[in-house]
Amino acid sequence: HDNSNIVTSLQFYNNKSISKHRKKHIQSADIDAAVKLLLKLKVDYKQMTGQDYKAGCPPSENSVVPDNGPTADGADDEDTVNPWSVSTTNAKGVDYDKLIVRFGSSKVDKELVDRIERVSGQKPHRFLRRGIFFSHRDMHQVLDAYEKHKSFYLYTGRGPSSEAMHVGHLIPFIFTKWLQDVFDIPLVIQLTDDEKYLWKDLTLEDCHRFAVENAKDIIACGFDINKTFIFSDLDYMGSLPEFYRNVVKIQKHVTFNQVKGIFGFTDSDCIGKISFPAIQAAPSFSNSFPQIFGGRHDIQCLIPCAIDQDPYFRMTRDVAPRIGYPKPALLHSTFFPALQGAQTKMSASDANSSIFLTDTPKQIKNKVNKHAFSGGKDTVEEHRKYGGNADVDVSFMYLTFFLEDDEKLEKIRQDYTSGALLTGELKKLLIETLQPMIAGHQERRKQVTDDTVKQFMTPRPLNFNI
Amino acid sequence: HDNSNIVTSLQFYNNKSISKHRKKHIQSADIDAAVKLLLKLKVDYKQMTGQDYKAGCPPSENSVVPDNGPTADGADDEDTVNPWSVSTTNAKGVDYDKLIVRFGSSKVDKELVDRIERVSGQKPHRFLRRGIFFSHRDMHQVLDAYEKHKSFYLYTGRGPSSEAMHVGHLIPFIFTKWLQDVFDIPLVIQLTDDEKYLWKDLTLEDCHRFAVENAKDIIACGFDINKTFIFSDLDYMGSLPEFYRNVVKIQKHVTFNQVKGIFGFTDSDCIGKISFPAIQAAPSFSNSFPQIFGGRHDIQCLIPCAIDQDPYFRMTRDVAPRIGYPKPALLHSTFFPALQGAQTKMSASDANSSIFLTDTPKQIKNKVNKHAFSGGKDTVEEHRKYGGNADVDVSFMYLTFFLEDDEKLEKIRQDYTSGALLTGELKKLLIETLQPMIAGHQERRKQVTDDTVKQFMTPRPLNFNI
Repeated sequence: HDNSNIVTSLQFYNNKSISKHRKKHIQSADIDAAVKLLLKLKVDYKQMTGQDYKAGCPPSENSVVPDNGPTADGADDEDTVNPWSVSTTNAKGVDYDKLIVRFGSSKVDKELVDRIERVSGQKPHRFLRRGIFFSHRDMHQVLDAYEKHKSFYLYTGRGPSSEAMHVGHLIPFIFTKWLQDVFDIPLVIQLTDDEKYLWKDLTLEDCHRFAVENAKDIIACGFDINKTFIFSDLDYMGSLPEFYRNVVKIQKHVTFNQVKGIFGFTDSDCIGKISFPAIQAAPSFSNSFPQIFGGRHDIQCLIPCAIDQDPYFRMTRDVAPRIGYPKPALLHSTFFPALQGAQTKMSASDANSSIFLTDTPKQIKNKVNKHAFSGGKDTVEEHRKYGGNADVDVSFMYLTFFLEDDEKLEKIRQDYTSGALLTGELKKLLIETLQPMIAGHQERRKQVTDDTVKQFMTPRPLNFNI
Repeated sequence: HDNSNIVTSLQFYNNKSISKHRKKHIQSADIDAAVKLLLKLKVDYKQMTGQDYKAGCPPSENSVVPDNGPTADGADDEDTVNPWSVSTTNAKGVDYDKLIVRFGSSKVDKELVDRIERVSGQKPHRFLRRGIFFSHRDMHQVLDAYEKHKSFYLYTGRGPSSEAMHVGHLIPFIFTKWLQDVFDIPLVIQLTDDEKYLWKDLTLEDCHRFAVENAKDIIACGFDINKTFIFSDLDYMGSLPEFYRNVVKIQKHVTFNQVKGIFGFTDSDCIGKISFPAIQAAPSFSNSFPQIFGGRHDIQCLIPCAIDQDPYFRMTRDVAPRIGYPKPALLHSTFFPALQGAQTKMSASDANSSIFLTDTPKQIKNKVNKHAFSGGKDTVEEHRKYGGNADVDVSFMYLTFFLEDDEKLEKIRQDYTSGALLTGELKKLLIETLQPMIAGHQERRKQVTDDTVKQFMTPRPLNFNI
């Protein structure tokens, strides 16, 4: 019994000569069976061709790249990486090299890091030196243009699902601030309060309030008020017509089939979720901000973000040429591990999974000591003898993110691996790094007045030459 | 060969023991065949059960009402009535009584017309006297509240697909103006330029320009500038945050399954079309217009519109209680027939199917004489002997819409039916009715300055007490 039989059955069934009497036997179960067959055929089609079956879907720049689903080799231990879920069974965390292949992006290699140093005239940020921003799209093109005095702008964002932000949420902002400083360019920061309303069991008012609260933490990262515009979708959509015009343009050029393939939406999802990707895409185009770019649509955008946001921008890059806009470039970061280990991202809903920006020095100390997963041995004797495993040690991973001194970090790694440094000592080093960092953040956040937030969030011209 | 064979095939195929070798034969054509089978099964399911097959679709207030597809009796000559297509095989036009049953609305009966006369203290508009506004939802509730000094507002609209408007487009506006006058209430008019961009091969700029041009024709109907707000979606979405907030609220409470069932959207439709219904729904809620209603969300809305727009508002009425808003009431009109006959609506793209608002007296005369479908007999002799058929005669239908004098209209009907009035004479009466009407419209439109349009289209308080 092979497929040709099924096709014959289908053809026979579709033949109009079938009697009314026979049709009467059709049951809901028949349809369910047909749906199952269809879904199975689609999965098989994908396994055979490496491509999604998409009827009437225009060819995509990324059509050769399988999306986040299982890959052709059928490995069950594949990492899950999408905007709503990140998980891996590997204690070292997600396999980022595999992700580059799956997503079809490019590795941030030594050549690119050296080039950023050359072009910016600045020592590369530790996130670049240490492979934390590990993947990119079109960065060389951005630098080519920059060398010819064609500037660009930065776009990053956050989904404000609660008031509480943790240190992991700062990663894109710390790096974006560095990019803004070394390239001297404008920056737009989108707070997707509409998205959080659509996905979570929250009111519009709550989501908007979280957006404003989160803006304070973002501002405390030190962004230049003359070069930075922070906006809530719920506010900005109603502030000027240009943003919605770009949203509609994008929405006209993306089908449900496409967002289904990219994001895994189903027929039971609300139409708000289904159309939302256009709203995250729109700030990638400079004419969404006429107050900043004077109506120009051709200014290159660079998006620093965690790799789980890439699906939005693969879609955006697909649409861009079809609506006459340049494709945004991207710089992707790895995920910031939970205290419990690198298998998942931190969760804002579990207070013990993360260091929050509101934690006291004592809370920081307790959380690190109690919850930070250790790569050390069970006893001091064993640890001295065999050494610890820095690759799975969360305290060491956190130091990789936050300890600026490369030599000191390398010495810690060596001492921990050799057994010279004990887990308690390593944790103490992390605590001493985090405590002043968080206290400093809290101090700067206190300085952020409601008036400052309002200024940052007011659509207005920015100070720069492009 | 009956359906059980197919189900067996499906089950066999779904059996996991099928070898990898066999799976390799799967072709895109197999999937297409399966899709065809699935669609066929769904149509058959609907014919059997009278209901759409909707996996995972939440129950709707209207779930017992089959939508615009074929009904359970399986009649092939069922009228098609949806926002994008209206057709019937009956020369008298769509069967509106059947439509009331299918849509689950209520008939505008003598009792309701008498009550409107009593409550408003005015002679009912000829569109009410003659069954042109033939169907409603919740009109008695609106009148109950009005009698208790609880007022309401009017909402109607137009999709600006071209500069050219024809007399048929005026029907909802003529009637809405009458309602505004007799009830002394505010009115909002939505121009869905975003919809036209999403559905047609037009630029955003064209659609917006058509909206402004169409606004001039609408204003020429005589709306009170102190009580009327006209808006383009492309402008208004960017004018204040409240409209988008309602759009997102609606979008959170409607699934793709639902819009698929109501509007027939498919997976190949763009996400803009899929989410658009929320934008047509939003003006049904008074807090979409804080500049008019000061943030109140509880003011009753009454929507006069052609019956083909009802699917949008069935959806709106489903959502309303779930987001804490009152359901909008509706008054539905029949369709204005094309010159060629009542089987279809007029088409703005076929100049000879309609009388345009820009037509000269000569063009009106020629179009009526050449193209208006006649219910008369082939020869004068036969006509005198057997009489004409007013029920299918387009000239007579047009007089029903535009000739105010009931007695005169009735006399025309009798004379035409008896054969005393010839087709040429009937057409002359129509021409003499249309020519001054269109000339008057053109005169009033000329008076509409850009500044007047701007005033009507500026979000602002209106003059009324609710």
